[in-house]
Amino acid sequence: MSRTVYVNGEYLPEEQAKISVFDRGFLFADAVYEVTTVVGGKLIDFPAHMARLKRSLGELEMKPAVEESELLNIHRKLVKENELTNGLIYLQLTRGAADRDFHYPDPDTPSSLVLFTQVKDPIENAMVKRGAKVITVEDLRWGRRDIKTVQLLYPSMAKMAAQKAGVDDAWFEEDGFINEGTSNNAWIVTADNTIVTRNLSTSILHGITRASVLKCAELLQLKIEERPFTLEEAKAAREAFITSATIFVCPVVDINGTPIGEGKPGSVTAKLREIYIEESLKAAV
Amino acid sequence: MSRTVYVNGEYLPEEQAKISVFDRGFLFADAVYEVTTVVGGKLIDFPAHMARLKRSLGELEMKPAVEESELLNIHRKLVKENELTNGLIYLQLTRGAADRDFHYPDPDTPSSLVLFTQVKDPIENAMVKRGAKVITVEDLRWGRRDIKTVQLLYPSMAKMAAQKAGVDDAWFEEDGFINEGTSNNAWIVTADNTIVTRNLSTSILHGITRASVLKCAELLQLKIEERPFTLEEAKAAREAFITSATIFVCPVVDINGTPIGEGKPGSVTAKLREIYIEESLKAAV
Repeated sequence: MSRTVYVNGEYLPEEQAKISVFDRGFLFADAVYEVTTVVGGKLIDFPAHMARLKRSLGELEMKPAVEESELLNIHRKLVKENELTNGLIYLQLTRGAADRDFHYPDPDTPSSLVLFTQVKDPIENAMVKRGAKVITVEDLRWGRRDIKTVQLLYPSMAKMAAQKAGVDDAWFEEDGFINEGTSNNAWIVTADNTIVTRNLSTSILHGITRASVLKCAELLQLKIEERPFTLEEAKAAREAFITSATIFVCPVVDINGTPIGEGKPGSVTAKLREIYIEESLKAAV
Repeated sequence: MSRTVYVNGEYLPEEQAKISVFDRGFLFADAVYEVTTVVGGKLIDFPAHMARLKRSLGELEMKPAVEESELLNIHRKLVKENELTNGLIYLQLTRGAADRDFHYPDPDTPSSLVLFTQVKDPIENAMVKRGAKVITVEDLRWGRRDIKTVQLLYPSMAKMAAQKAGVDDAWFEEDGFINEGTSNNAWIVTADNTIVTRNLSTSILHGITRASVLKCAELLQLKIEERPFTLEEAKAAREAFITSATIFVCPVVDINGTPIGEGKPGSVTAKLREIYIEESLKAAV
């Protein structure tokens, strides 16, 4: 069955979902995106995704394509049209189409907006059950990782490096510290059960799931430290895990060949995942 | 008049020149490009652009869309169809369209290829006559600037910063050294008439015009140093200039408000521009 895809006001069969080759998303990676997970037909953390989209647009002096309320309508219509129960909705907004020029086009140029769905079960996941193995790679991304742009070639290269190394994913290392994963935030649980994840800055994506999981850790009255941690610290940790909109909370059991803790998914990670799912399903719209 | 644009084997009116929203060039900036200048209907430095394209593809494990001889045919057909005398041909090649996944798609996925023309006179240029003013901005681009990818958002932001500052362009500064311009290589002429431009590495684009101008400097028996230079050194230089496929050689007369030399286009720059144009027109195909 062909998916229905949203492109600039139209709902089209995916084969017809096209944009101009002059679109700045295609020519300059001048575009931002969000991925919202759908569970049981409902949107997880939707207002937070829309708030981050607004922030990305602001940082790039880019304007929204439609009102925020209309974005919710489009998400819901795509869920319905594609009979989506569990999966995700990808949204990309670009500075629009204009003759190629490094300078931004006339401010009246309409932004381009594209949304499509993917089927995926975020709850039942084999990798979550066995725990992910990761390698570290040098972080060569641009300096504004807090803006969620489509400049994703290096994360894509890092995912391929991980696949070639026979593991699941890669963590970006910079100046001796772990920044985050290719498409997720990185966390450790220290020997004294402190939850550590890198503080927000331009070095990492301001993960929506990261923020929600921090709240869950508070609910569990866990000790939390938002600060950079080193690879050595991660290897010596009791547990490690990653968070993202599509994997939620996923244990990491091996870093660069070193088993973390007992080399199997840990109990703090499991508890955080459980509470995150419980809380986010309650708040789903 | 509507331009004729090449998209994956078809020659289309520009309004119909579209690609799938699932193209990895659009979703991941997983794409490389080249810009070849056209003078008098002929292609400047064409073999060098094709050699660099091949190198970019190799670095990214991406495959060509068509044979190199076919690329020449497409360039020539676009020149003819669009009655292009002076201007440029933009070429973009992507890893193709596939359902969104950070991992590269099946290797059998066809690459996407797009080419279009733009009218521009590279010889008669007002900025060349008066000399460009530039500001410096911190280099926040990714670490593999030697690969000519479409991850151009930061250069685009830097061009806008220059425009806001009332100048023509920006130079990227990193660790106290000048890397290059937003879409050009940066050069200085020192007090003892030595030509200095940054040595090739992953820090800068391996400019085609840069390589040709180095040969011109040899023809002129000028002393050449390929090495990093600082902003202070640039400010104290006798002359400064930029090189790119579309501007050729263009004097820089002001950096961050400091006039360079006498604050007007210099004679070494003018001589290099003259020889470059002469030599490249001779070799045009």
